[in-house]
Amino acid sequence: MSAYHPLNETEAIEIARKLEGVFAPDAQLACREIGDGNLNLVFHITDSASGRSIIMKQALPYAKVVGESWPLTLDRARIESEALLLEGELAPGLVPVVYLYDQELALTIMEDLSDHVIMRQGLMNGTRYPLFAGHISTFLARTLFFTSDLGRNQQEKKLLARSFTNPELCKITEDLIFDDPYRDADTNSFEETIRDEAQALWNDGELHLEVALLREKFLTRAQSLLHGDLHTGSIFITPESTKVIDPEFAYFGPMGFDIGAVLANLLLNFAGREGWDKTDAGRESYRAYLLDTVKDIWSQFEEKFLALWNEHGVDRLANTAPGYRENYMERLLQDTIGFAGCKMVRRVVGLAHVADIDKLEDASARERAQRLALRIGKSLIKLNRRAVSIDQLIDAVNSASAAAKA
Amino acid sequence: MSAYHPLNETEAIEIARKLEGVFAPDAQLACREIGDGNLNLVFHITDSASGRSIIMKQALPYAKVVGESWPLTLDRARIESEALLLEGELAPGLVPVVYLYDQELALTIMEDLSDHVIMRQGLMNGTRYPLFAGHISTFLARTLFFTSDLGRNQQEKKLLARSFTNPELCKITEDLIFDDPYRDADTNSFEETIRDEAQALWNDGELHLEVALLREKFLTRAQSLLHGDLHTGSIFITPESTKVIDPEFAYFGPMGFDIGAVLANLLLNFAGREGWDKTDAGRESYRAYLLDTVKDIWSQFEEKFLALWNEHGVDRLANTAPGYRENYMERLLQDTIGFAGCKMVRRVVGLAHVADIDKLEDASARERAQRLALRIGKSLIKLNRRAVSIDQLIDAVNSASAAAKA
Repeated sequence: MSAYHPLNETEAIEIARKLEGVFAPDAQLACREIGDGNLNLVFHITDSASGRSIIMKQALPYAKVVGESWPLTLDRARIESEALLLEGELAPGLVPVVYLYDQELALTIMEDLSDHVIMRQGLMNGTRYPLFAGHISTFLARTLFFTSDLGRNQQEKKLLARSFTNPELCKITEDLIFDDPYRDADTNSFEETIRDEAQALWNDGELHLEVALLREKFLTRAQSLLHGDLHTGSIFITPESTKVIDPEFAYFGPMGFDIGAVLANLLLNFAGREGWDKTDAGRESYRAYLLDTVKDIWSQFEEKFLALWNEHGVDRLANTAPGYRENYMERLLQDTIGFAGCKMVRRVVGLAHVADIDKLEDASARERAQRLALRIGKSLIKLNRRAVSIDQLIDAVNSASAAAKA
Repeated sequence: MSAYHPLNETEAIEIARKLEGVFAPDAQLACREIGDGNLNLVFHITDSASGRSIIMKQALPYAKVVGESWPLTLDRARIESEALLLEGELAPGLVPVVYLYDQELALTIMEDLSDHVIMRQGLMNGTRYPLFAGHISTFLARTLFFTSDLGRNQQEKKLLARSFTNPELCKITEDLIFDDPYRDADTNSFEETIRDEAQALWNDGELHLEVALLREKFLTRAQSLLHGDLHTGSIFITPESTKVIDPEFAYFGPMGFDIGAVLANLLLNFAGREGWDKTDAGRESYRAYLLDTVKDIWSQFEEKFLALWNEHGVDRLANTAPGYRENYMERLLQDTIGFAGCKMVRRVVGLAHVADIDKLEDASARERAQRLALRIGKSLIKLNRRAVSIDQLIDAVNSASAAAKA
């Protein structure tokens, strides 16, 4: 294969045909480019005779977001592919299978998950996923534990961290999550109706201190290999199956950033329910389901993480020092709550929003959802260093919700 | 020059002669290998006619410590050389000038500092260095600030951190400082007279928790480029000049580890004074000088670091969030105190000791010094997370000293 160039559909089919053990040699392959063209080309290649299909994802050397375009390293394809492979080893069945990675073409060929839906859409539709808390807590516990100094040879971990050095994509997070929403930045995007909320964010010194501390953790705490962008748009789901995709933001950072991302996106849907349910009872019931899921994810994560630590802990002193586990898990909960708050705030006033809220057609419901999301987000950020139990997060959400109604 | 092999003196002279602008073409060069042969060859090359001289340091592919020998990457020569160059840019005059680095030979050619003495020996001799606190606080403030996310482009910092990935030398620290002294490890080394002290270390759960937390910071906190081994044996000194040498342990870690190393080694000399001074008054006077120096180093470091932050801070939120600076400096002080304590304990019961204590000929003075060093070290470790002022470190030293006399 020649040097890098964006593939067309014919070339994609040629490459697919050469994959070993996927398609029959004489298969009639159909190809459709289904990406949104912002960051990557995504080819969906199918063989209707056998029913087999694959996804080919090729990184583009630029990013387009809201009309802007800037150059972006193709190395993110390597990072994504290597992260998927490692996550697949550590949490089998919870990420798509990778068939091939071609470095020169910045191309990853992987399992087709067309029978799944994007979880964000599923939640907007009001679908319940009773196995999700179990799946995602396993994914989090196993990927975070086994890439940390608690669960991996500490010299190997350093070499792994080196290979996941990811400055360009980290910068996107540093700017869009940990800076811009807290100042009057050009990149911010919000409706005029909530300008008062945005201005309050820019002038809240107590909030700025907490965000600065969380930003520092994102910049300096090489705890584990993170997915780095674990929102509900990075999860393919069915009631039976959960698949985490798109780890191109992977790098070694604070564990709580990944856990917090999952919780934040459930809570953004919680806020968005201002408009999604047909009845008040339906809304309250789905919100209760979301809060139960939030609590389950943390509780199951904690239990699984501690079980892995008991069985596979490699750090003698961390294993034996009295009180260390409790101290560690408490700090992890605090980080989770703080990062969850940051993830919520940026989705209302920052560059990138979520459909759970933005797709609400009723302007008044949308505004209520935005204000509620901000209220929850800010209260989690301010809670973070004081938290000792996941119940405090649930209480903060309920209080914010009650205050929003008052 | 051919592939790697340990040089002999004739080869060293040949290489020296080719350096541009150092020696005259027809200079009569003399060469003497002055290393201790444990980790490196060190050639001292002189031209008696011009009075010029240089040092050539070549890494050996193994380490010998206390009879044991294990293979060690030659990449540490690259790390040492690159760290010296960067430290020289950031803190001019406070490290030896590097003339040449030859990667293939793992060879660094640098300024000869034979007119300086190793600071540890100077302190044992009772020499006072009134400029030292000023020099070392400048070195620490400038190297730590400008390699951190506060003072350097955060994407460049990540690439720099990648190039200073240093797993082998970090492991030496992780084992010898943050693990072995707190268990009955084969590598430990102490006199039978203080076995009670060693056993107390192995059974002190409160201490283990604090050491585990400090160990975690060493493993995960990529705050700044550290020297990584900044004891008084890594400092060449005269009353007018201070030169920091031997940064082969350099990596991105917690700032307090470097600051704590300096303070710990002054305090080890404080403990060692049980035997070095001719009179009680002489001892008390020198101890007061050492404690003044400890306090001066922290105070001047803090002042200089904050001044750099004011003038060169690159992180908008860190620059503006109310209370963040105070929070940051308080945590840095706490880390400094904790790491200082760990550095003291390991020098009494761990593998590598210090001459300030071990060279005391009087067994009773030596034992008193060892017990005092441990008492101070343990109290600093237990103080660390509660500390809010450098005066608490000074008080802890004075209390330990008084308790040891009682």
